[in-house]
Amino acid sequence: MKTAAIIAIGSEMLGPTRVDTNSLKITVALEDFGIEVVRKVVVGDRLDDLAGEMTHSLDRADLLISTGGLGPTEDDLTREALAQAFGLEMQVDQSIIDKIEKRFASRGFRMPDVNKRQGNVFVGQTTLANERGTAPGFHLNVRGKDIWVFPGVPHELEWMMATHFRPWLESRGSVKRLRRVLRITGLSESGVEERLAPYYRAHEGEPLTILASAGQIELHLQSGDAAAIASREHELLAIFGERVFGFDDDVLEAIVGRMLAERGETIATAESCTGGLLGSRISDIPGSSRYFIGGAVCYAAKAKIDLARVDPEVIRANGEVSQEVAIALAEGIRARFQSDWGVGITGIAGPGGGSEAKPVGTLHIAVAGKSGTEHKKLFLPFPRTLMKWHSTQAALDMVRVGIGRAAGGG
Amino acid sequence: MKTAAIIAIGSEMLGPTRVDTNSLKITVALEDFGIEVVRKVVVGDRLDDLAGEMTHSLDRADLLISTGGLGPTEDDLTREALAQAFGLEMQVDQSIIDKIEKRFASRGFRMPDVNKRQGNVFVGQTTLANERGTAPGFHLNVRGKDIWVFPGVPHELEWMMATHFRPWLESRGSVKRLRRVLRITGLSESGVEERLAPYYRAHEGEPLTILASAGQIELHLQSGDAAAIASREHELLAIFGERVFGFDDDVLEAIVGRMLAERGETIATAESCTGGLLGSRISDIPGSSRYFIGGAVCYAAKAKIDLARVDPEVIRANGEVSQEVAIALAEGIRARFQSDWGVGITGIAGPGGGSEAKPVGTLHIAVAGKSGTEHKKLFLPFPRTLMKWHSTQAALDMVRVGIGRAAGGG
Repeated sequence: MKTAAIIAIGSEMLGPTRVDTNSLKITVALEDFGIEVVRKVVVGDRLDDLAGEMTHSLDRADLLISTGGLGPTEDDLTREALAQAFGLEMQVDQSIIDKIEKRFASRGFRMPDVNKRQGNVFVGQTTLANERGTAPGFHLNVRGKDIWVFPGVPHELEWMMATHFRPWLESRGSVKRLRRVLRITGLSESGVEERLAPYYRAHEGEPLTILASAGQIELHLQSGDAAAIASREHELLAIFGERVFGFDDDVLEAIVGRMLAERGETIATAESCTGGLLGSRISDIPGSSRYFIGGAVCYAAKAKIDLARVDPEVIRANGEVSQEVAIALAEGIRARFQSDWGVGITGIAGPGGGSEAKPVGTLHIAVAGKSGTEHKKLFLPFPRTLMKWHSTQAALDMVRVGIGRAAGGG
Repeated sequence: MKTAAIIAIGSEMLGPTRVDTNSLKITVALEDFGIEVVRKVVVGDRLDDLAGEMTHSLDRADLLISTGGLGPTEDDLTREALAQAFGLEMQVDQSIIDKIEKRFASRGFRMPDVNKRQGNVFVGQTTLANERGTAPGFHLNVRGKDIWVFPGVPHELEWMMATHFRPWLESRGSVKRLRRVLRITGLSESGVEERLAPYYRAHEGEPLTILASAGQIELHLQSGDAAAIASREHELLAIFGERVFGFDDDVLEAIVGRMLAERGETIATAESCTGGLLGSRISDIPGSSRYFIGGAVCYAAKAKIDLARVDPEVIRANGEVSQEVAIALAEGIRARFQSDWGVGITGIAGPGGGSEAKPVGTLHIAVAGKSGTEHKKLFLPFPRTLMKWHSTQAALDMVRVGIGRAAGGG
């Protein structure tokens, strides 16, 4: 059993506002046991669409999991669709109806008649108790393949996954698949691909997944063999070096936080265009009060002068968005708080405010530390909020590299 | 043209961490023109799966839209899958390659060879320019049906939807469905439901969609009739009054910004537990430099004292998380910057830091203005980053209501 398909049933997920988050929980469990999700489909409440998708998906995977459509209303058609798709017979399990009646009674209500539909079961199914809701789930074997049918309510699904599904996956003796993720920042996707060319040639046919998101790129290694993973990781670290900032679920702000905490060092920030986003990210990490003193959000020039003690002459001579002002912000806030590290950020997030000399996307970052101040100028031509995100990503990375070098390490 | 199918291409969305949010944007546009999404599928980067799903989906809808798989890497197989699925011929459009080369050059880079694949086009396609990325999209007509192919990067997709897709939907003469959204904050979902009971009774059977997300609730009215929408909106405003902060795509930070700009007033912030998130949200709005001077991120007590001029004795007597300190932060930063409004936030975001007297989730917000200072104490028992978000939502709402009352309005 190697592959799985997931069907999320419910027309609300075909609308403009809801996403199918249930499938993520299911995927985590499947991947832990080496089963790959090959398709995910969201379908509505139409019987024919539903039945058609069930056959189509079961043809394309070893295992089929569905969520939703087990409620008491007319739109809940999962059982009917399974019956139609696979020619299955339904019968009534009175014990299920009795259980639902008790559940309503315990809250002082009479069970509505419509809930009786939830007592319909398939001959030969394994009924899965649902302690958190009315609809039981079920597990069927059809055409030699396993079909698992869950309710769609997230916290009900969670309980049933933990109580029924994971133990079953465990009992199947599926080989646990290992995943190791390397997280890279400061390179474009094509930059990463170019550097990987010799690695690809050396390991032709081996899967290496590259996932890009704002300001970072993930390299995913997967194997049943821990030694193989360690060996590939070693090679990739040799290729990417300092560009790898972390592994698995690491985020830059947590990495930086850990480095500061380990060294007993503190940091303060002076942000202009990012408006507080850098401080917010640093303080997202539990325990950040150990190393984060605070900072200045210096949106206007007078805030730069007053809070970060930037010399007005430096602003007058170079403009607020300049190397000199970034350095003055970093050094000023560091001095003000007597912190080990100070970060200064000034740039143009757009859409307005740009010029030919300093277009939208221009960014200056400075990191001040014991041994001096580093500065970097970047061009980040993204929409406003994304430009802010990339700016904080670059700033955190500069701090990370700065701390690493100060410590004498890489 | 009544129905549409969406295919989201990319194995990262079959993994345990990514959701397909692109399809939501596409669905909004489709629904505005009365086109119903009947299926959404996520498939990976396997050519046969991709090609198979394209034929399967196109058979089941009038219109097919895909996102993703147009990048430069080996895993980007959307073009190849379309060619295989529908027997289409590809050729090279050198002008696309030239454009991509220029884009890399403007950032000081050489275009990697792999990007040349993005110049492959289909005979007879309409190429859709992409101002925000390298991959152009395209629009094809196959078997009498329209296929729209977009890149998967969200901010690139947004621009292309606005620039190419919406105008095309408009030109098709599809009947525009009117949607009006009322945005509410400061009430729970059940609180909203309770207040709606008489409205539901008065308008039985009429669709009113309620969507809850962090710190806000949306009421969606939909109809082909503008007068009916206006009438229902009027009723809902009478029920919810001041709790309605905006409409359609309004966000609190934009509403507050507009109010300040209209009055020529300024604001400054002093944040402890939110770490800069309030300043970041305020500065997300283009033009916010008109009213946002800056602020203090006062994570440690010494930052509260130094930046926001809080009297150390107030901290000693009441603790950092207290009504007195919140007020001191708001008034201190307002005085420091001589701004019209000052906001102070102090609380316990967790998971650590709580006590019996001041549990995790405790929050004090103060808003200082010309006529005095308002204070509110809230209990926000959410995980850390969500607690921070709710805190900024509550703070922005207090400012909104405060400005409205100062102006003598509602």
